[in-house]
Amino acid sequence: MYSPTIQKLIELFSKFPTVGPRTAARFVFYLIKAPKEEVDKLLKTIEELKKKIKICPLCFKSFEGEGEICQICADPRRDKTTLCIVEKEVDLEAIEKTGKFKGLYFILGGTISGLEKEEEKRKIEERVEKLKERVEKDKEIKEIILALNPTTEGQSTTLWLERKLKPLNIKITQLGRGLPVGGELEYADEETLSSALESRR
Amino acid sequence: MYSPTIQKLIELFSKFPTVGPRTAARFVFYLIKAPKEEVDKLLKTIEELKKKIKICPLCFKSFEGEGEICQICADPRRDKTTLCIVEKEVDLEAIEKTGKFKGLYFILGGTISGLEKEEEKRKIEERVEKLKERVEKDKEIKEIILALNPTTEGQSTTLWLERKLKPLNIKITQLGRGLPVGGELEYADEETLSSALESRR
Amino acid sequence: MYSPTIQKLIELFSKFPTVGPRTAARFVFYLIKAPKEEVDKLLKTIEELKKKIKICPLCFKSFEGEGEICQICADPRRDKTTLCIVEKEVDLEAIEKTGKFKGLYFILGGTISGLEKEEEKRKIEERVEKLKERVEKDKEIKEIILALNPTTEGQSTTLWLERKLKPLNIKITQLGRGLPVGGELEYADEETLSSALESRR
Amino acid sequence: MYSPTIQKLIELFSKFPTVGPRTAARFVFYLIKAPKEEVDKLLKTIEELKKKIKICPLCFKSFEGEGEICQICADPRRDKTTLCIVEKEVDLEAIEKTGKFKGLYFILGGTISGLEKEEEKRKIEERVEKLKERVEKDKEIKEIILALNPTTEGQSTTLWLERKLKPLNIKITQLGRGLPVGGELEYADEETLSSALESRR
Repeated sequence: MYSPTIQKLIELFSKFPTVGPRTAARFVFYLIKAPKEEVDKLLKTIEELKKKIKICPLCFKSFEGEGEICQICADPRRDKTTLCIVEKEVDLEAIEKTGKFKGLYFILGGTISGLEKEEEKRKIEERVEKLKERVEKDKEIKEIILALNPTTEGQSTTLWLERKLKPLNIKITQLGRGLPVGGELEYADEETLSSALESRR
Repeated sequence: MYSPTIQKLIELFSKFPTVGPRTAARFVFYLIKAPKEEVDKLLKTIEELKKKIKICPLCFKSFEGEGEICQICADPRRDKTTLCIVEKEVDLEAIEKTGKFKGLYFILGGTISGLEKEEEKRKIEERVEKLKERVEKDKEIKEIILALNPTTEGQSTTLWLERKLKPLNIKITQLGRGLPVGGELEYADEETLSSALESRR
Repeated sequence: MYSPTIQKLIELFSKFPTVGPRTAARFVFYLIKAPKEEVDKLLKTIEELKKKIKICPLCFKSFEGEGEICQICADPRRDKTTLCIVEKEVDLEAIEKTGKFKGLYFILGGTISGLEKEEEKRKIEERVEKLKERVEKDKEIKEIILALNPTTEGQSTTLWLERKLKPLNIKITQLGRGLPVGGELEYADEETLSSALESRR
Repeated sequence: MYSPTIQKLIELFSKFPTVGPRTAARFVFYLIKAPKEEVDKLLKTIEELKKKIKICPLCFKSFEGEGEICQICADPRRDKTTLCIVEKEVDLEAIEKTGKFKGLYFILGGTISGLEKEEEKRKIEERVEKLKERVEKDKEIKEIILALNPTTEGQSTTLWLERKLKPLNIKITQLGRGLPVGGELEYADEETLSSALESRR
């Protein structure tokens, strides 16, 4: 058995996404071996993170710096007519990296899968209410892109969102399906292949 | 060491696609254990395959039965204005399964990757010549879909085909890229995600 | 849909171990493309296999050539005091390849897992009866090595065999457990690691 | 691009074992979302870790609490005649979990593979010097178990250690090789299978 402090830290690291107790143990021994300055830098940066990072009240993206809203929402060059709904912040970053989307975002914070905790579901529902308010007020928005993952959870959340957003009478679109780079026709499901055929160009 | 006949059969099965010597050995022991009638049926079916299967001179699909050309090429209900180029017959079957494509096919028989044998490359080049002749003669064809796999080999073959087919002055399209069912934005490459955004609907 | 002969052959290949319909289809197209001589060689070798291969009545290994029993059972230089029980012929070959075992073999033909078909279970039980007869008659045998796989099925079959063979009053051993080449202590289960410690040398 | 503090923390987490930038980003967003108390507990525990954890000067295991040496080295009930050399602390824990080893340990801190940095190699060499001193002084030790991983690096380090420790004239053993629980004869390498046969019982 590991000593109490090691055990306690293994438990805390095990709550990190994708981390099990074995990996958590490796993290702890990495910290034990690491030079004091390295660990101090880590502690200081985590503290700073909790102090400096704010959540944008418009899109729910994390940001730091001056201002009440995030850099994307505040950017006058962004196209204010298109709003892209994503599950989580890393998805927003993935879209930003393409450089192809110039509109605004809205982070849903998760998916409705029927399996999540009541509390989590309520959070997402609250966010959808804020989304509806925002769209109702902001007359500039002409299109909502539901850019959720084409996973089972993402797809059922997309359907649920479509029902919720329908009364707003705004154009609602979804990301195109198709074969990804490196994919093969032979292993593609029929829906993906059908979409790839229909969206040929 | 296995006995000579077993060894010889392991070598022959090892030439089958995806089969290594270990799997080949399992195939041989499966046949040793299998009832005589089962093995006879296998032998007879392989013989029939080599006797009955013809290759369609128009699309290079395998087929059996009456007639000089395959059932798809002979079907009057198929849309003769669209020709879909695929790498191999299983890709054709994958597209047929979607039920979304009503045009005709042309099987290229492989890809040009720079690594294939001279002989193989020559075969594909011959086939492209036949494709060009067919398209030149057949005034009905209005669109050629290059439905090769979006792999490195498929993409370079697509570029090569585009150059070859350009002088024909016919509309050339490609399958749409996008997120496949089950995919995730976080793990998608930029090209796939860009296409998914552009082909949203 | 593939043509009838192709479909029939896909079904027959799908019965091969590890082969699903997709791989079976690739096998069929490999055969369609393959030169006639190659396919003829395959057919001839499968026919020969079914004609020439005999099953040794002592150890149930397949063999070809003169004689009523297999080359290992007939070899006067093999150590007749040790009998190694294996699940299947490929396991026998794996042990032969090490060159470390000079005794005789007995192929069980499968495992007792509780999930196999009645018929299969009866076959294995019949074989165990033959094993018992053989050991009772053959006074030279001093040790039976139960070299079944240390999988769940292999382990329960080992226990079952131990009960069956106990009345014979012969030394029964099992393969040593331990860390395999390339293994890591960190990921080893406790039983494996305990055995590795106990069998240190 | 992520904001500066997020980016900095992603870089720090990316130094953790097994963590790449994508996983590091997920860790950061986990911390952003996590309640303040949870993060405070993490920070406090990491601080405590660096304050409380001592390294045992005898076996190089980490420990906390009173005393100059670790609980295992200090335990009068441990068998002082056997010393088990392991690569790293998690390997020690794996052996402790079996409950089968009652002797003492010595953590080498890594392997000699020829590819590690000079500094790292020097550290391991220093530790081996300490090991030699310890064994020379401590007349109770009768056996040294080289319990390194049977990986390429572990095996070359084992050979290197054997040469270094030979002059001490003490019995040197290694963990037994064999098939692990769940392993299969068919896929075992010859060395593993030979050992499994030799260590049968």
